[in-house]
This record gives sequence, structure tokens and C-alpha cells, in this order.
Amino acid sequence: MSYSIKDLGTLRDFYQQQLLQDTIPFWFPRSIDEEFGGYLLMRDKDGSLIDDDKAVWIQGRAAWMLSTLYNTVAPEKTWLAGAKAGIDFLRKYCFDADGQMFFHVTRDGKPIRKRRYFFSETFATIATAAYAKAIGDEEIAAFSRELFSKCITYATTPGLLPAKYTDIRPGRAIGIPMIMINTAQQVRSTIGDSRCDQWIDQWIHEIETYFVKHDIRCVMETVAPDGSIIDHIDGRTLNPGHAIEGAWFILHEAQYRGNDPHLIELGCQMLDYMWERGWDKEFGGFLYFKDVYNKPVQEYWQDMKFWWPHNEVIIATLLAYTLTGNDRYAQWHKMVHDYAYAHFHDKENGEWFGYLHRDGSLAQTAKGNLYKGPFHLPRQEWYCLQLLNAYLKNNP
Amino acid sequence: MSYSIKDLGTLRDFYQQQLLQDTIPFWFPRSIDEEFGGYLLMRDKDGSLIDDDKAVWIQGRAAWMLSTLYNTVAPEKTWLAGAKAGIDFLRKYCFDADGQMFFHVTRDGKPIRKRRYFFSETFATIATAAYAKAIGDEEIAAFSRELFSKCITYATTPGLLPAKYTDIRPGRAIGIPMIMINTAQQVRSTIGDSRCDQWIDQWIHEIETYFVKHDIRCVMETVAPDGSIIDHIDGRTLNPGHAIEGAWFILHEAQYRGNDPHLIELGCQMLDYMWERGWDKEFGGFLYFKDVYNKPVQEYWQDMKFWWPHNEVIIATLLAYTLTGNDRYAQWHKMVHDYAYAHFHDKENGEWFGYLHRDGSLAQTAKGNLYKGPFHLPRQEWYCLQLLNAYLKNNP
Repeated sequence: MSYSIKDLGTLRDFYQQQLLQDTIPFWFPRSIDEEFGGYLLMRDKDGSLIDDDKAVWIQGRAAWMLSTLYNTVAPEKTWLAGAKAGIDFLRKYCFDADGQMFFHVTRDGKPIRKRRYFFSETFATIATAAYAKAIGDEEIAAFSRELFSKCITYATTPGLLPAKYTDIRPGRAIGIPMIMINTAQQVRSTIGDSRCDQWIDQWIHEIETYFVKHDIRCVMETVAPDGSIIDHIDGRTLNPGHAIEGAWFILHEAQYRGNDPHLIELGCQMLDYMWERGWDKEFGGFLYFKDVYNKPVQEYWQDMKFWWPHNEVIIATLLAYTLTGNDRYAQWHKMVHDYAYAHFHDKENGEWFGYLHRDGSLAQTAKGNLYKGPFHLPRQEWYCLQLLNAYLKNNP
Repeated sequence: MSYSIKDLGTLRDFYQQQLLQDTIPFWFPRSIDEEFGGYLLMRDKDGSLIDDDKAVWIQGRAAWMLSTLYNTVAPEKTWLAGAKAGIDFLRKYCFDADGQMFFHVTRDGKPIRKRRYFFSETFATIATAAYAKAIGDEEIAAFSRELFSKCITYATTPGLLPAKYTDIRPGRAIGIPMIMINTAQQVRSTIGDSRCDQWIDQWIHEIETYFVKHDIRCVMETVAPDGSIIDHIDGRTLNPGHAIEGAWFILHEAQYRGNDPHLIELGCQMLDYMWERGWDKEFGGFLYFKDVYNKPVQEYWQDMKFWWPHNEVIIATLLAYTLTGNDRYAQWHKMVHDYAYAHFHDKENGEWFGYLHRDGSLAQTAKGNLYKGPFHLPRQEWYCLQLLNAYLKNNP
């Protein structure tokens, strides 16, 4: 199959409708905490609150999403006020005295847990950058750039955060260059930062050099410092949806750079390799983990279907199709789109369920928890909407 | 239903046959590492090695199992030699310079990961105690008693190990008194230690006082320091199979103390409450996590069927039946036994698979990994064999 311009218009309308009439209204305005600021996002299928704790990653992601909708979709005052609630909460309660951010806080901002990662910082960076653009505030823009600097320091200074493992078997994780590419892209598109292009080059180079294995058609999740495969359970474990998220960050960069042919080729190869490994030919949908040599992985739940890899694959396939015109990507986009909206979407209450068994049956009903909130799904619907708007404008 | 003496004889023979002709031969002798000592236990369904790393918990558990078989089933020299390989490896490679044990080491004993728990220490305690009895060695017995002292210190000194959470929302976990009861029971039955009875009293008292909730018929996994329920996702999460493991540690103590009626009542209540919450009435088998108020839990894989809760429930129901003669426990024993041997047992290669989907289909094929090895299944078959041998001797 391939998409006609009419199909793409229908698809654009669908993503817009889902984003604005289904996904965003599930979360807002009810999740804005009028008492303490921030968001109350841990919700069951019908929106009832499971827990009033706040996951710092998701507080930042939600503030980014609201600011981004305000910046790019419509200047809705309620979105801007919602973004402010999150930004204020992040700045007031989510930083420890040593400057590191927390991972999990109480409703009133008391710290429960700090982790040995800096993802709270990357999400707070993009949230404050998007919000600074929304209100045109140079103080918050400076705050965001400083936080971005801190992320660069964490990403490039091994040992700065406490280590979970000894240094007996050192490794590199693709998550670091990936999250940094996206963080830099977001900073660049909102408040701008002259460091972004060069850092993005370096992180893409790192992914291409160490993680993409053309000989076995694979994108590794973890490798040894020299890029070799660590032949132990953890080192062999692949996360196809995550690698495909990395693929679309690179395809996005290709598009930004005037359809850079090398970056299009690299992103499409990553998508091709990991579609082959992640798509479940028996039941449809994307498997969570796979072993590079098809051995058992440590995680027993490796064949579950999670919502977010489907969001990433929906974006990557649409981006690959609009960049290349290759019918294979149109077909894959339709396959993953149809599977996801048929199985994850809650037609009764809106938004998506997060967790299905391999066979597509529902494993549990939470819409929001420590890891799920208003991010991957609305980002996907927003990104596809923006992408198709631009594509249809250029290809009338 | 109830079991006749003839049924129980058949059941005894079944457990003996499974233990000695199926489970133990899957692991030994092939898993003994002749080159570096310790055991190579991370194996796929057919016994092929997935990874040559060594999980310290499982190294200790395997050395305990081999020593215990030697002490209680038959004086097989290969079991004793196998036990020695594990004990030597534990003592030589698995302790850090600060005295704390590692969690995960390489084949040749280099440390990969240390954790903020002391379960490596509890399993090394019971392993060295059982081995000291097997060879009648007072130096190893003293080593084991000293390690037991260290476990008591960890268990009773909050803050001694680095904390994963802040002290904003303090809690108690049932895992600590549970593991300590079992550790003390094992030390007592092998090398003896005058501290055991009193500590066991205290830990049972802690479970009864803080974790067992008669008003809602529930055994909590975590509570606030005063025993109240922490009404957040983590605080509400129940682990029925784990609570039932605690039930049988208490029933075992009841039996040791001449069928202490209060301990029998307590253990049976814990079993009753958590059978009701954990048994899957739709598909059979034991669910892994449940929320105390039936809300969604954080873990998306909460409805999977894991091998080890079934081992614990098989023991608990048989012990409850032999202690009380209550037909309900005979019926439950048959239900969980039939489910487990029908679904987990690998009739082709021996041993059990570890991980099933809720509907009983196989999720993955590993027989051994960082968390699964020769422990829960052989311990269950060994315990039921010993229990029925004693019961049939006393009830001819």
C-alpha cells in the first residue's frame, strides 16, 4: 500500500481529533493540582486517582507537552496555566540540595526517591525550554540552558552519578545519546542554543559507531566501550521500540537538515532492523525485549505489549514514509497504527491502556503511574499532526 | 476431599521421584564449575548455558540445597563435593572488602553488582550452616554463626545499608522478619545457635503485630512503622505467594514447638487470607501481585504466574493439612499441585519453567537466570518429602 494525499489528510484529521478530543481531555484540566502545583497523574482507566504522589519525570513531560501544545497547536490559556503549575512545582520541590533532581515526590513536594540517572533533568530541561518560549521569559530560558549544561556534564562524565555496577564490565547505553539528541532538538526548537547542532552530531555519531550493527542487522541497547557485544544476558537484551525511538530522533534530524541523505539512510536502517526483530508476527504489535541471539532474556515480561513502543513506531514509520516515499513504511505505519488504536485505545474513557499481554488482552487498567502519563501518546499524536500538516502544505 | 494415608504415601513417592530423578539431575552434576568453583546455573530449557555469570543469592541457595540433601536424604559424595564447590566460591569471591557480600559476580568471581539488601548474606548463612553440619567442621560453623550475627545486625539496624528511599515515608517490609525466621530455623536445625528461638519469637511477633490484618483478612507486604497501611501504590501492593511463604515458616515453627496452637492458627489465617487474594479463580494458579483494594498495581506483569509462589503454596497447604487435618487444605494442596505440575513442569527436559502468562501459556523458557536456580522447586520437593516421611511414620 501507499498513502494518497487524501489518505494523509484523513490521517492528519484523525491524529488531531484523538489528541484534542480524546487524549488531552483525559488528563487536563482535572490533573492540575490547584493546591500544591504540579499534576496528579496516577489514574485508573476512568480517571479516578490511584495515588497522589508525583513522578518527577512525568511532571516534566506533562509541562513540556502543555507548553508545546501552546507553542505549536493553539494559544490556549488553560494549557499555559497548566504548564506554569508544573514548571513552578519542578523548580520549587524537585531539586535536592546537591542540585540533582528527585525521581518521586509526595503531593506536597517532599522527596521519596532519588535515582542514579539524570532523566528527571532532561525532562525538566525540555519543559522549561518550551515554557520559556511560551511566555518569552529569558530567566527561565537561562535556567533551562543551565540545566541542559548539567545534563551534558552527566552524559559525558562517567562516574559523576553513583554507579549501579562495578567497573569490571564497563558498558555504554544507547539511552544516553538518544535522550540527549531529543533534549537538544527540543532546546533548539524553542529557546535555541548554539551548542545543539554540534552535540547532536556527536551523539548521532556515537549511536552509529557503537550501537548500529549492520552485519547482524541490529541496534544494540548496551555495548562494551569499544562497541563490541557483551555476551551476557543484560548485554544481549534488545529493546526494539526504544531503538526505533532513536531512529525517529535521527530521521527528525535528517528532516531538519534539509533531508540529509546519510541521516535518512541511518534512521531507516535502524527502523528496518528493529521492526524485523520487534514486530510480533504471530499476534501483531511490538514485543518489549528480545535477545540478540534469541536466547531467553532476564525479564520474564519481555513479550508484553506496552503502549509507548507503539507510539514510537507510529512516529518513525510515518516519518520514514514522508521522507522516502517507500511503500513499506506506509504499510508498517498502517499495521502498527491499526494494532495500537484497536488494542490500546480505551474507547469508553479515552486515552490508552498501558499494558497488554502478548495476545493483545488487557493486563491492567492504569492510565497513569510512576512511568506512564501524558507524554508518549500525546507526543505521538502531536508529532504526527505537525508532520502531516507540514507535509500536506508542501505536497498539496 | 481429604487424603488417605495411601494417598499421602503416593504423594511422598511422587515428591521423592521428582526431586531425585527430575529436578536435581537437571542441575547437577553439570552445573558445578570445575574450573573456578561455584555453579553455572543460568540455563535454558534444555540445560544449555545462557550466561556464565554467577548470582550470589543462587550460589548460596544451591550450596544449601546440596548440603541439605546430603544431611537429610542420603550421604551422596557427589552432593557433598558439589556443596564444597559453592561454599569455597562464596567465601573466596563473594565478599567485598567492607564485609558486605556482592549480588552478581563473573564466572571467575569478579564483582559486577552489589545491592542495598542483605539476602546474599542470609543465603550464605544457611549454606555454610548446612555444609558445616555435613562435614562436621567447627571453623565453618563459627563462620556461619558470625554471618548470622551480621544478618541480625542488618535486620535490626535501619540505615546500616544505603537507603533506596528517603525517610519521608518510612516503612517496614515483611521480607526482613520472614527471611530471618527461615535463616534462624536453618541455623538451628544444622549447627544450632542458642539465639535462634528468641529471635524467631520476636520476628513472628513482628509479622503478627504489624503485617497481619484480621479486619480485612490480609497479610501486607509493606506497612508504616506503626503497622498502618500506606495508601500509595507501593504500600498497597500485596505478594500473596510471598505472604504464604511466611505462613509456612510459621507453621514449621508451630510443628517444631510441638504443634503450638497459636502458631498453627496464625499460619493458617495467613494462608487463608492470601489464598483468597492470590488464587486465580478464572485460570487457576497464583497471581503474583494484587492491590489490597483491588486498584492497579505499578507492576504491569502482576498477573503472571511465577514458579516460586506455587512452590511456597504447595508446602504451606500440605503443612496446614498435616497439622490440622482440615480438608480445605487437602483440596487446596491438590489444586495448586495439579496446576503447577501440569503447567510449569517441563516433561521433556525436567525441572520447571519459571514464567507463565496469566492464562497458563509459557512466557519464556529460562530454567535459570539471576533469580531462578536450584532452590524453590527442589526445596519444595525436599520439604514435602521430609514432611510426609515424618507424618507417615507417626501415622502408620
